[in-house]
Amino acid sequence: MSSNQTERKFEGWAAMDENAVKGGMKWTEYEPKEFAEDDVELEIQYCGICGSDLHTMSNGWGTTKGMYPQVVGHEIVGKVVRVGKDVKHLKEGDVAGVGAQCDSCLECVNCKNGEENYCSKGLTGTYGGKFSRTSAGSKSYGGYANYWRGPAHFTVLIPEGVDPAEAAPMMCGGTTVFTPLKQYGAGTTAKDVGIVGIGGLGHFAVLFAAAMGANVTAISHSHKKDEDAKKLGAKQVIVTGDDTKAAFKGHERSLDLIIVSSNAPDMPFDAYLSLLRPHGHLVIVGVAEEGSLPNVHPFNLIMSNVHISGSAIGSVKGMEECLKFAGDNNIKAWVKRYPMKEANEAVKSMNEGEARYRYVLVNEEHGGKLNA
Amino acid sequence: MSSNQTERKFEGWAAMDENAVKGGMKWTEYEPKEFAEDDVELEIQYCGICGSDLHTMSNGWGTTKGMYPQVVGHEIVGKVVRVGKDVKHLKEGDVAGVGAQCDSCLECVNCKNGEENYCSKGLTGTYGGKFSRTSAGSKSYGGYANYWRGPAHFTVLIPEGVDPAEAAPMMCGGTTVFTPLKQYGAGTTAKDVGIVGIGGLGHFAVLFAAAMGANVTAISHSHKKDEDAKKLGAKQVIVTGDDTKAAFKGHERSLDLIIVSSNAPDMPFDAYLSLLRPHGHLVIVGVAEEGSLPNVHPFNLIMSNVHISGSAIGSVKGMEECLKFAGDNNIKAWVKRYPMKEANEAVKSMNEGEARYRYVLVNEEHGGKLNA
Repeated sequence: MSSNQTERKFEGWAAMDENAVKGGMKWTEYEPKEFAEDDVELEIQYCGICGSDLHTMSNGWGTTKGMYPQVVGHEIVGKVVRVGKDVKHLKEGDVAGVGAQCDSCLECVNCKNGEENYCSKGLTGTYGGKFSRTSAGSKSYGGYANYWRGPAHFTVLIPEGVDPAEAAPMMCGGTTVFTPLKQYGAGTTAKDVGIVGIGGLGHFAVLFAAAMGANVTAISHSHKKDEDAKKLGAKQVIVTGDDTKAAFKGHERSLDLIIVSSNAPDMPFDAYLSLLRPHGHLVIVGVAEEGSLPNVHPFNLIMSNVHISGSAIGSVKGMEECLKFAGDNNIKAWVKRYPMKEANEAVKSMNEGEARYRYVLVNEEHGGKLNA
Repeated sequence: MSSNQTERKFEGWAAMDENAVKGGMKWTEYEPKEFAEDDVELEIQYCGICGSDLHTMSNGWGTTKGMYPQVVGHEIVGKVVRVGKDVKHLKEGDVAGVGAQCDSCLECVNCKNGEENYCSKGLTGTYGGKFSRTSAGSKSYGGYANYWRGPAHFTVLIPEGVDPAEAAPMMCGGTTVFTPLKQYGAGTTAKDVGIVGIGGLGHFAVLFAAAMGANVTAISHSHKKDEDAKKLGAKQVIVTGDDTKAAFKGHERSLDLIIVSSNAPDMPFDAYLSLLRPHGHLVIVGVAEEGSLPNVHPFNLIMSNVHISGSAIGSVKGMEECLKFAGDNNIKAWVKRYPMKEANEAVKSMNEGEARYRYVLVNEEHGGKLNA
């Protein structure tokens, strides 16, 4: 046993190849990073299933090759069971969460400004990454597992008043949409907000934007989710069908902000831009596996002074704010819980688009609860 | 003689077809819009030659078909010689200018907010457009001509302290770059500003951004304009050559704002985005004739929270602010003057890329001066 191992045996659902996404993960032991004095260890109680997990297992973004085996999962909540000497904000017994990022340089201007998610040296993903600050070269492993070990800087306390099972999917999915909604003034400077794609991220975006006081328009490909969108807080739903331009007739220049959470290929961005008022923003948070932005005619940017941008997950502060907002506003995420041992079934169902709208894996032996 | 004609005979250089851009315009009489009580008439003293004039004459943007003959020119300065009853801010004898827009609905929320350039009903271009508010259906004719007639709302007083010959190219080219530099905080929130393309618009962008106190980086395809860029106020020049990515090594995340004034096709937008700090803006003001945005990978937007947008000319207020700024800061546009009768030679030279950096046509018989 090497010096960096405690008595804990780290085990998780490992993707050995691209078939994992179809329900082919294997329960496997793995070696975590060396414990550093600014690290913590969690007994994982909950781990959300995020779209990125699937894209990673399938190598759909082309980023996974040579990085198998992978233990994915970056919406982790658990009990703090080990705390390094340098950790100030957490103690044993706390319930804490980790999102999609587990490390960065902590020294560059962006890290210093509290935007570790835009670290100039790049960020270490909670899975599929390599540590470079401590335990340099070690692979990072995620939360479809029994334990998690990593930098406490990226581990936040789950506030009272938020069900930790619902907090889990907020660590990535929730924060990813909360952050741009806040950045672009949903409910304040951006009164009219469109949410494209009613899936895991989109359902959070509708919930949050409505709670921020925005007039929310859900934009969906089919009528399947009309009722859900309204229950989540959307005031109207635009169904695009196969003729987006026709569907948007009469809605031109009616929105201040659009969050694109869909990752469908061939998104008709020019049509979406037509929905924006001058100075409006279209913010991409979902990435299609095919991956590149369909042509947008510059005249469509120029003639309305509209903006296309993207937003990456959230900072540590962003996660804390998201959780606090959810608690203060009694946000109820639509979560279905699966026992950790049924992770393959859950992944398969998620991959087939059945989630309404987020799945969370539960370790009952660590205190996770299968029922709310 | 119809009731809408005064004794003035309107004549100008007309593009009869796509060959005009090679120096084939014909001096021709034409009928202006019917005079309305909120119109003015100018004796044209100066008219700048704008890149848009060339794109329009050549039908390079595909917008001109069926709209010949065209009298282009939308950087017009002249003496007010007729004033409708409803005009308050101008009187006979004033020296006034018109930019690229000569009409809009004046009623929509954008017009009311002083952003006529984003009018919800569309704008009437100073040439190649059709009036719809007064004299509905009449074609608009520009400033390669002896007179101009149109709505006073879009006609601004040229302030003392700005040479009217230099004011002319500020009516479109200058204002087009001044507006986004101001909108995105050049010299204040955007300390480090990149200007892509050192041409007519780019030369104004460098002049203005430097005067606003920004640290300006000129980005150019070749070394040809290095010295000029520095004389205009750039602190450094990046020459891209044919390997933009290589040229940008070491400059990643060094700029807050990039104005793309170049209209070269196949712009490597992904590479430009790498120059932006998180929250930075890339603003397109030039449009290639080939016309559509090269693919940008969404990850490059997402991972730095950077923005692509466009900006269209300027509002009436924007033109006034631009002229005032130029006067207050003693901005000297680099202008070469041609007699109006040599318009074909000037257009041909401009089309061949010889301008350093703006040409202005001069009507000496109306008081325009061929020498500064």
